[in-house]
Amino acid sequence: MVGKEIEQMIKLLSRLPGLGIRSGRRAALHLIKNRESMMQSLRDALTDALEKIQECPVCGNFDTMQPCTICADTRRDPHILCIVEDVSDLWAIERSGVYRGFYHVLGGTLSAIEGRGPENLRIGELLSRLSGSSTTEIILALSATIDGQTTAHYVQDRLEAYASTQGSPIHVTALSHGIPIGGELDYLDDGTLTTAFRSRRVV
Amino acid sequence: MVGKEIEQMIKLLSRLPGLGIRSGRRAALHLIKNRESMMQSLRDALTDALEKIQECPVCGNFDTMQPCTICADTRRDPHILCIVEDVSDLWAIERSGVYRGFYHVLGGTLSAIEGRGPENLRIGELLSRLSGSSTTEIILALSATIDGQTTAHYVQDRLEAYASTQGSPIHVTALSHGIPIGGELDYLDDGTLTTAFRSRRVV
Repeated sequence: MVGKEIEQMIKLLSRLPGLGIRSGRRAALHLIKNRESMMQSLRDALTDALEKIQECPVCGNFDTMQPCTICADTRRDPHILCIVEDVSDLWAIERSGVYRGFYHVLGGTLSAIEGRGPENLRIGELLSRLSGSSTTEIILALSATIDGQTTAHYVQDRLEAYASTQGSPIHVTALSHGIPIGGELDYLDDGTLTTAFRSRRVV
Repeated sequence: MVGKEIEQMIKLLSRLPGLGIRSGRRAALHLIKNRESMMQSLRDALTDALEKIQECPVCGNFDTMQPCTICADTRRDPHILCIVEDVSDLWAIERSGVYRGFYHVLGGTLSAIEGRGPENLRIGELLSRLSGSSTTEIILALSATIDGQTTAHYVQDRLEAYASTQGSPIHVTALSHGIPIGGELDYLDDGTLTTAFRSRRVV
């Protein structure tokens, strides 16, 4: 019984990750009730984003500049390249402030179930940008899931094959696995606990 | 480190009910990745809504027509008026299909804590539309919360005072309270169980 304009808003909002039909309805109503501060602002933000945001042809990040702000930042360490699955991972690492090198977004993981093979990931772009670059370390910052680790192994193989043709060694490293900071032992899953034991180190 | 355009999208999406900063980021990224199907469609839907959707001056519903589709529907029963707190309640009742009369949206409840008094609700509009109307029953479909029930009592008093000046009786009814359909007894709160006992009926 709601008009088709409202129905369309609800339909689209419901498709956002984390929202369903009920929260889509609530969101639509919130937008309608806050016409200037929310509905108009969001419309303008989307218009702005549609005009300006593009995928960075170098690293795969989203930005208004091409290459993106990160790729264009000359203060970053040109010797390290961090490989991530998704732009959201890049954002997360940037927020942590722990890393000041460059990035390469794969655009997903290999997945037999979802039918994603190497040709669906930005691996060709990775190898092309390495030739002639001053990269000496590549950090594999992929998820600690089956698909993430399968992808990490695959990328490592491709990088080693590439490095052997170049004669210049590239260190491939991976993020450590173990107990998350703040994590309580008795809430950890067995896999994490096993990994934390096996990767124990001298203090 | 994300550009101001993306930052603005995240900020606005995070303010939607049910979303926070993390889900706002995920939503923004989902929109960016699905440029045509999501970002552009949502922008167009918002533009459309901004141009067309208004509050119905009669009942307080949101629609592109004035008066709204419901108020303009001559097949509805003109003798019953259902009073709800919010447009979302009106939508919920319409979805159930149980009711074919007209509506009046109060626009909230009385709330001492949030400082909402009678002047913040559409009660004046309610009394004005009653004069000269053929309404014989008013259904109070307000929440079974303290504020909802306080508001129901207040509206009932105002309606009775109004009816006494008119000389024409108006039946004021309220939705029943009790065990929700599908509800299991041992999961019910004490208040609901007490109400269900007190309002028991002959079968």
